[in-house]
Amino acid sequence: MNATIADSSGLRADGRTESQLRPVTIERNWSAQAEGSALISFGSTKVLCTASFTNGVPRWLMGKGSGWVTAEYGMLPRSTNERMDRESVKGKVGGRTHEISRLIGRSLRAVIDTRSLGENTIKIDCDVLQADGGTRTAAITGAYVALADAVEWGREKGFIAKKAVALTDSVAAVSVGIIDGTPMLDLAYVEDVRAETDMNIVVTGSGSFVEVQGTAEGAPFDRDELNALLDLGLAGGVDLTRLQREALAS
Amino acid sequence: MNATIADSSGLRADGRTESQLRPVTIERNWSAQAEGSALISFGSTKVLCTASFTNGVPRWLMGKGSGWVTAEYGMLPRSTNERMDRESVKGKVGGRTHEISRLIGRSLRAVIDTRSLGENTIKIDCDVLQADGGTRTAAITGAYVALADAVEWGREKGFIAKKAVALTDSVAAVSVGIIDGTPMLDLAYVEDVRAETDMNIVVTGSGSFVEVQGTAEGAPFDRDELNALLDLGLAGGVDLTRLQREALAS
Amino acid sequence: MNATIADSSGLRADGRTESQLRPVTIERNWSAQAEGSALISFGSTKVLCTASFTNGVPRWLMGKGSGWVTAEYGMLPRSTNERMDRESVKGKVGGRTHEISRLIGRSLRAVIDTRSLGENTIKIDCDVLQADGGTRTAAITGAYVALADAVEWGREKGFIAKKAVALTDSVAAVSVGIIDGTPMLDLAYVEDVRAETDMNIVVTGSGSFVEVQGTAEGAPFDRDELNALLDLGLAGGVDLTRLQREALAS
Amino acid sequence: MNATIADSSGLRADGRTESQLRPVTIERNWSAQAEGSALISFGSTKVLCTASFTNGVPRWLMGKGSGWVTAEYGMLPRSTNERMDRESVKGKVGGRTHEISRLIGRSLRAVIDTRSLGENTIKIDCDVLQADGGTRTAAITGAYVALADAVEWGREKGFIAKKAVALTDSVAAVSVGIIDGTPMLDLAYVEDVRAETDMNIVVTGSGSFVEVQGTAEGAPFDRDELNALLDLGLAGGVDLTRLQREALAS
Amino acid sequence: MNATIADSSGLRADGRTESQLRPVTIERNWSAQAEGSALISFGSTKVLCTASFTNGVPRWLMGKGSGWVTAEYGMLPRSTNERMDRESVKGKVGGRTHEISRLIGRSLRAVIDTRSLGENTIKIDCDVLQADGGTRTAAITGAYVALADAVEWGREKGFIAKKAVALTDSVAAVSVGIIDGTPMLDLAYVEDVRAETDMNIVVTGSGSFVEVQGTAEGAPFDRDELNALLDLGLAGGVDLTRLQREALAS
Amino acid sequence: MNATIADSSGLRADGRTESQLRPVTIERNWSAQAEGSALISFGSTKVLCTASFTNGVPRWLMGKGSGWVTAEYGMLPRSTNERMDRESVKGKVGGRTHEISRLIGRSLRAVIDTRSLGENTIKIDCDVLQADGGTRTAAITGAYVALADAVEWGREKGFIAKKAVALTDSVAAVSVGIIDGTPMLDLAYVEDVRAETDMNIVVTGSGSFVEVQGTAEGAPFDRDELNALLDLGLAGGVDLTRLQREALAS
Repeated sequence: MNATIADSSGLRADGRTESQLRPVTIERNWSAQAEGSALISFGSTKVLCTASFTNGVPRWLMGKGSGWVTAEYGMLPRSTNERMDRESVKGKVGGRTHEISRLIGRSLRAVIDTRSLGENTIKIDCDVLQADGGTRTAAITGAYVALADAVEWGREKGFIAKKAVALTDSVAAVSVGIIDGTPMLDLAYVEDVRAETDMNIVVTGSGSFVEVQGTAEGAPFDRDELNALLDLGLAGGVDLTRLQREALAS
Repeated sequence: MNATIADSSGLRADGRTESQLRPVTIERNWSAQAEGSALISFGSTKVLCTASFTNGVPRWLMGKGSGWVTAEYGMLPRSTNERMDRESVKGKVGGRTHEISRLIGRSLRAVIDTRSLGENTIKIDCDVLQADGGTRTAAITGAYVALADAVEWGREKGFIAKKAVALTDSVAAVSVGIIDGTPMLDLAYVEDVRAETDMNIVVTGSGSFVEVQGTAEGAPFDRDELNALLDLGLAGGVDLTRLQREALAS
Repeated sequence: MNATIADSSGLRADGRTESQLRPVTIERNWSAQAEGSALISFGSTKVLCTASFTNGVPRWLMGKGSGWVTAEYGMLPRSTNERMDRESVKGKVGGRTHEISRLIGRSLRAVIDTRSLGENTIKIDCDVLQADGGTRTAAITGAYVALADAVEWGREKGFIAKKAVALTDSVAAVSVGIIDGTPMLDLAYVEDVRAETDMNIVVTGSGSFVEVQGTAEGAPFDRDELNALLDLGLAGGVDLTRLQREALAS
Repeated sequence: MNATIADSSGLRADGRTESQLRPVTIERNWSAQAEGSALISFGSTKVLCTASFTNGVPRWLMGKGSGWVTAEYGMLPRSTNERMDRESVKGKVGGRTHEISRLIGRSLRAVIDTRSLGENTIKIDCDVLQADGGTRTAAITGAYVALADAVEWGREKGFIAKKAVALTDSVAAVSVGIIDGTPMLDLAYVEDVRAETDMNIVVTGSGSFVEVQGTAEGAPFDRDELNALLDLGLAGGVDLTRLQREALAS
Repeated sequence: MNATIADSSGLRADGRTESQLRPVTIERNWSAQAEGSALISFGSTKVLCTASFTNGVPRWLMGKGSGWVTAEYGMLPRSTNERMDRESVKGKVGGRTHEISRLIGRSLRAVIDTRSLGENTIKIDCDVLQADGGTRTAAITGAYVALADAVEWGREKGFIAKKAVALTDSVAAVSVGIIDGTPMLDLAYVEDVRAETDMNIVVTGSGSFVEVQGTAEGAPFDRDELNALLDLGLAGGVDLTRLQREALAS
Repeated sequence: MNATIADSSGLRADGRTESQLRPVTIERNWSAQAEGSALISFGSTKVLCTASFTNGVPRWLMGKGSGWVTAEYGMLPRSTNERMDRESVKGKVGGRTHEISRLIGRSLRAVIDTRSLGENTIKIDCDVLQADGGTRTAAITGAYVALADAVEWGREKGFIAKKAVALTDSVAAVSVGIIDGTPMLDLAYVEDVRAETDMNIVVTGSGSFVEVQGTAEGAPFDRDELNALLDLGLAGGVDLTRLQREALAS
């Protein structure tokens, strides 16, 4: 089955090199209704990200003059190869969904000065329309674009001061993993399920880490492997940052 | 506010006549994974419909040699003008969602011979990506296209006999309503909220009724008004049937 | 099995003609505690309807000076031939229950001027003690009687102005259906399960439609069949309106 | 406020002596559908009790050749003076409901030889239509009548052996309490809320205890008070047993 | 199997006489964080009881100047011999848990003058770390110690007036039961499952009853048996009261 | 506020150096009932870890001859400084709880050959009795000890082959963080809330990584900071591995 990932020439099943992202497209302002939105694709993975600028903050923040950014992640039932049950029908949100929602929220809050928002909350929704690996990293990368537009909307409407530095940096995310001993960037689903080690890296536009989550799916990994993955992830982050900048400039 | 619906020339805010549908587009095979799928638009309303061909039937049908078709409807949180809470987070499916899911399922079952499916279930998912009135009628109209493709898939894979007449007819749906005393076809959101009477009509390709649901939102309606609405709806059904046929022929 | 519905003389299993209601009884003020109440029977179907006059309105209505009418429907676990699980034990309200609760609420709101109520809510509870078809139509018909008494209670207590026209009309409901090609009024359970088309009609005392919900359970229905069902339903509505008036006059 | 409970002549507000039950009526076979049923009244308290003879037993009993008896208690939302929220709508069964359901089940199991039932379960439903104190004791007393009829049904259908002693005794329940220092039998709601000590006693037809639950609502109670309450309760049990026997003989 | 409970010398399996408690230890102030706490053991049964002094009262008490005491009981999943599912994972609290939580709360409220607390609530948590019968009685006995310390904390912090009599008495609880015809005190698990009658007795330090709950698990019990159980329970209460006093004096 | 963490001499508030663990104690076989158990303390953080050897595997593993290890994490309501609501009462498990439960399960599965277990599942429960930072790392470290004992139990009972290498390594976890620019090991609660970067490291006894989770709570972190944290964490892992070995040898 090795051939499905990389052939003897070192290329992967989809023709990429180990350090290459899948084709990434960012369709900004996809939604006619949200204050910010982006339909992002990492290859066949498609995530619709919207940012809703809403009045008020969670109870524990009330009266402190600061705003908040929160996120919810979801998957359409047939975004995957096998249909999944709807979480609304099951009556509860699963652990994985919770985990990813929290990760997206933390990642975005790392690059925004919530005090600039007044007592308003930007709610990010990342809904996976089609899944082929890397849905959480695509979600974070697209969500930043939606967030940036919602911040501009808030500035135009006077909720954010004209001169306030609301966004202190940009943020993007990418997966890396070790497959058959080889570190690779931006895993597609067929790669992801075969990875011995799986890591998600969230990086700022200026190249610092916001989150590093590495998991040994098979054998534990050593320091050298960790370093190789971090190198790949940081390089991927540079590419994604450029694509985000281009989308926001268009 | 009258002007937002129809100007003095008799045209509606978006330039349509009373008996005119909004622009309808059907993007067939939108999903790379579902056995059938369609992204349908009724103007700004966009619904992603997928059909999943799955093994097995509900418990009460087991051992009877017949299949089943069921449907679930959902809205993305920011498909609407104001963000709605996610039903998965609230931990329960609301009454309106239940009602529409059941309506879609009944409508599709009216045109399929479930005995032809073997003990398999086709699960339809209709997820509203953007809402501007008529989401349930767009959902039914798009779901039929996805269903038709899933039936063909089942036939190719041998789950449905080559010569079996699985689909006995096509089915489509459209809303009609009375606004300021005037019956109108295919209401956009701004029209829907002002309608005195609101009706959803589900019709077969051959022009019979599958479902008629009329509700007096304001004053009760009389027999003449009911007849005018049924006339409009049947005419709209003819147009939608043609568009479905074109999509499936492409 | 035809004989269980109608014999060769054209009579139904219970001896009724096609256009005849089952025996209807309305036991007004059944409850010693509710502001209005009625135990209504449509043949063996028995529904206890109570109206509770309560302080306050839903959040979205607050401060607008208007009241509200809402309804909840339920079935006792052994109201049916086979015991059903309790929805409280299952931890969620099913789709059918939601659908009927919403229908009852809409039907009653069509004949009440909620502005006359002040910021108060009349909560209707319709609990099926015994079910033999037509529970939702019996519920609406009985609920109107309970509502009328709660309105009078509110007027006596000074919550509703002495001269305000709170109820603009009366409202009743009845089922109709096509069985073996014959349209019939007020289906009992054995008829309901065999109906090709099933329709619930909610009509005002003055003979207008509040709600028309027709569903093809088997083959789709055409315009003539629809018209025949509407004729039957309107006639049944006249009878029920008279019985409501008699109950309220007693 | 003393006068609302007992006047100077020693009679209670409703004219009873301290050791007198409220008027008790048992309408046997109220339901046309359940295998056993009784509508029981203790004064204004009305509880509809049904017994459903169902196939199978809980998982932990499977394969042991024995049956089971279980019970569920519920209150209609407007059975009380103030409307309560429905437990189905709240999505969970409250502690008090759980407690009473379990009590009813235990009480009935004390007088039935579950081995005689085969692997079948008799499910008791006790739904309070109107509440005026003593709903749980009325429920137990009525449930026994429904149970006895369901047992006879099972015997006629051959699920219970003709000669098997299924019911080893009868069971009834009554509340007792101390109000203003005076022990009283079968408390109505106005008495119940003023009781310093509140006790529910479940007794067999032969005068033994199945359950004794005494609670100090105000000051703790001593041994003498406990004894006085037990005396009253046992006497009330004798009366209820006679009424059950009469109902079952009719 | 008789030998596992009592041998021919009249001693129980663990060497106790019929009227003897298991070794009871009360580790006061086990928690570094709660305002009051006790880790109590009745033999192998271990319950961690904490008392949290919190601001505010339930809605129905607001504005009345009085406080409240409430309790929640829980079991760790592997506190029992067979692992139980977590109630948090099941998404609902079971009937037994509800019942015991309510019993603990009532028992404690019987000995506290809630008006002395101001509008504050003392929340008691009793979590069973290891279960070997008598968890609810150990919980009540330990909870009183935690409560007493939380009251002292409230007094020191000025929430309770220096001279207010907050606790009017102490409260403790013990189980009694009839096994093979012999009444016994403080049943261990192996005894509890074999008891024909099972009773929990909650008594004050001054020897009055707060709660008496006796249940016939097998045959009903008569008045003499009830009296023997009450005698045993009252004697056990005296011992537990002494142990509580010693713990609070240390 | 700096002084609460480290004084001018470079020591932390509790007197530790930056690379020093809190006092760690492992009370093995705390539970009389579980197949393996440990009460572990990291300073004031106390977690009760039990391992239950249970029959059967999750559905997706059935029939494959392999076993499974799963984990659930929970906190007692008053394990924290402010009482938290019980997740069972709230009716759902929160995102953080889910996240930690999944982390514990993954960490343990990294060092066990599940094929050696037969079709059995070892269920780990980690319940926090007292929380002072590092509850998830203490849980993983203690859970390994409980797991090792449950594996030995399974071997003795014949569920695991005498010579099978069930555990391929040991696993432990520790937190590291950057506070005021200084990397520190094993953060107590007061340190944790002030950390700019917070990382949890799960390492095997042989010094490889099982999981690395680093989060920028304040400013993003760079590669050098990441490396310093990894160094500290690996060193802490060596100490914890030794303590686990000692506990298992005792």
